[in-house]
Amino acid sequence: MQPRRAGGVVKRTSHQDESCAIARPLDVIGDGWSLLIVRDAFDGLRRFGQFQKSLGLAKNILSARLQTLVAHDILRTVPAADGSRHHEYELTEKGLGLFPVLAALRQWGDQHFFAPDEVRARLVDKEQHRPVATVEVRSADGRRLGPGDTEIRMTTALG
Amino acid sequence: MQPRRAGGVVKRTSHQDESCAIARPLDVIGDGWSLLIVRDAFDGLRRFGQFQKSLGLAKNILSARLQTLVAHDILRTVPAADGSRHHEYELTEKGLGLFPVLAALRQWGDQHFFAPDEVRARLVDKEQHRPVATVEVRSADGRRLGPGDTEIRMTTALG
Repeated sequence: MQPRRAGGVVKRTSHQDESCAIARPLDVIGDGWSLLIVRDAFDGLRRFGQFQKSLGLAKNILSARLQTLVAHDILRTVPAADGSRHHEYELTEKGLGLFPVLAALRQWGDQHFFAPDEVRARLVDKEQHRPVATVEVRSADGRRLGPGDTEIRMTTALG
Repeated sequence: MQPRRAGGVVKRTSHQDESCAIARPLDVIGDGWSLLIVRDAFDGLRRFGQFQKSLGLAKNILSARLQTLVAHDILRTVPAADGSRHHEYELTEKGLGLFPVLAALRQWGDQHFFAPDEVRARLVDKEQHRPVATVEVRSADGRRLGPGDTEIRMTTALG
C-alpha cells in the first residue's frame, strides 16, 4: 500500500473527520473494553451483570461503554426475556458486522499470544466442530491477496 | 456462540492471563493509536517523523507506542535506507499477520461510518484496481459462516 493522505499535524481527540475507514470506528471500538463487550455479546451474554462478571470492569465504566455502543447502533437494548424490569443488550446488524473483524483478531491472537499446548478459546464451525478457516483477504475474483497486492485508493462507495 | 468462560470478578490491568485470543492482543493493539500506527506501516510509512505527521500524535506518546509495538515483535527497527543515523520501522511477520484484521475493520468502517458519496480510503486490488472482496469467515471446507454457525471451544493449538 502507498501513503495516501496529506495529513496536517493536528492533535486529535476524535477520528470522525478522517477519510480512513479504520480510524473512524476507533472512537467507538478503539478502547479494548468495547471490543471485549462486543465479543461477549457474540458469545451470548445479554445482561449488565453478565458483562460485569465476564469483564471484571467497574460498573460506571461498563455502563459508559455500553451506552456508547448503543448510541452508535452496535448494541441495542431490548426488554428482558423473563419480563423483569431489567433490559438486555443484543447486537444490531451493524454490530454483527464485526464478526469477521473479531474472528481475524482471534486467529491472530491465537497464533501469536499462546504457547502451542496452552488451552485457549477457539472459534469452531458448529456443524463440523473444526476450527474455522484462516480469515483471508481476497480480490473480487477470488485471488488470495497479501498486503503487497493491495493499495489504497480515495473513492466514494460507488467508485 | 455460547458463553464459554468461568470468569471471576477481578479488576484487570492486563489481559495476559485470559484464555481468550481476542483479549490478549488488546494489551498491545487495544488502544486505537497502536492500530493506526500499524495501518500507517502497511501504507508504507517507516520514519518517526512520518508517523508523527500522519497521526498528529505527541512525540512522547508516539515514541511509547512504537516501543511497545517493537517490544511485542509487531514492528522492528532497521537502519535507514539512506544511511543516516535515524532508524526506520517495518512490520515483522507477526505484524503483517494483522492484514486481514485491518482489512475487515476497514470494510466495516467503510460500510457504517461514511455516507455513500463521501470519499474514503478503500483497499483495492493492485492488479485490477477494484475494491477487495468482503472479508468473510469460512469453515475448513469453505462454507461461509455467520456468527450463529460458530461456537467457542476451549482447546490447544493441536485440538
